[in-house]
Amino acid sequence: MTRSRSTRDRIVRAAARLFLARSYQAVGVNEICTAAEVQKGSFYHFFPSKSDLAIAVIDHHAAALWDLLDTFESSSRGPANKVRATADVVGDIQGRLHGYFGRVVGCPLGNLAVELVAIDDAAGKHAAAALNKWERRVAGHCHDAYEVSQLRPEVDPDELAHQILAAMQGAILLAKVSDSAPDQIPKAMYQVIEGALQQKVAA
Amino acid sequence: MTRSRSTRDRIVRAAARLFLARSYQAVGVNEICTAAEVQKGSFYHFFPSKSDLAIAVIDHHAAALWDLLDTFESSSRGPANKVRATADVVGDIQGRLHGYFGRVVGCPLGNLAVELVAIDDAAGKHAAAALNKWERRVAGHCHDAYEVSQLRPEVDPDELAHQILAAMQGAILLAKVSDSAPDQIPKAMYQVIEGALQQKVAA
Repeated sequence: MTRSRSTRDRIVRAAARLFLARSYQAVGVNEICTAAEVQKGSFYHFFPSKSDLAIAVIDHHAAALWDLLDTFESSSRGPANKVRATADVVGDIQGRLHGYFGRVVGCPLGNLAVELVAIDDAAGKHAAAALNKWERRVAGHCHDAYEVSQLRPEVDPDELAHQILAAMQGAILLAKVSDSAPDQIPKAMYQVIEGALQQKVAA
Repeated sequence: MTRSRSTRDRIVRAAARLFLARSYQAVGVNEICTAAEVQKGSFYHFFPSKSDLAIAVIDHHAAALWDLLDTFESSSRGPANKVRATADVVGDIQGRLHGYFGRVVGCPLGNLAVELVAIDDAAGKHAAAALNKWERRVAGHCHDAYEVSQLRPEVDPDELAHQILAAMQGAILLAKVSDSAPDQIPKAMYQVIEGALQQKVAA
């Protein structure tokens, strides 16, 4: 890794942490520079605006998510288990975030999407696109599960994918605001998934 | 209504609108005073801090919600239909907000809860308590439905109430960030509710 790549990385990782701990709007560039141990000139070299940083943080979270989805899905046999892997990935992420921050801080992509959509069109759309890409990925497995009759016949695979991610975002929000443990989050997703599967699709 | 009551109300309503359109942090006291057509001194007479205003806005949204729940529930016969009324109330609120703002702006209580929890302990807890009170109200109807065998026997009434509100918050978040119509929101709640009811509990 070149020196400049590692400086950029430090900024993105520090910003990702600070945005999760508080919010995008609550954290200023000065604070990010201090946490990343970089000069302000260096910051603006990589990120001409805070909006550019937001997009880089979204890409950072999305890349980490795709990696985890690849890992969990590749050890899951059959489409129903690949759908279940989504809940396991979220349980893994939320468990680690809870360990690091000591509380549920939210969905890394969802937090940024919902905050940016109202204040920064480009960055908001970028976060929404990442969430939508995730939903399409889950929908692909739901369609595969439907094809091999693992879903109940009345279930719409696209709606199921939407409901799985809705259950996730909602359970995260409720756990965050009530300062609860993160266990309820994958549980809420599993409830939706198991309700849509034919009886006894073995895990 | 006395003159001072109407001044306080104008401030709360203007703040509620502006917070929904953007966010609590993105809107300043000056802007609220301009929108409410009040002097800054008058603002600080009623609300010594922005945090006090946040709490008043939460109470304003909660009171409107309890009123709507009272109305919809009192025209619903039987506990299963009182559970369904929650989804209808949310459909009504989100439909009206969409009509006013031209887009899904979020759950009035959920938006404030999730934003305040990270930056203002008292106001964040106040919003979380309002959401919790709502969940307990829905849970009461879920328990009643369980007692009269309207729920499938394996359903936990408290978990069902949590899942209904999680589906709501998640569907709102996804509709907001993807700029979708609000129809999906009560639909996601109905999906959870109907999945937990015994076959053919008539609406």
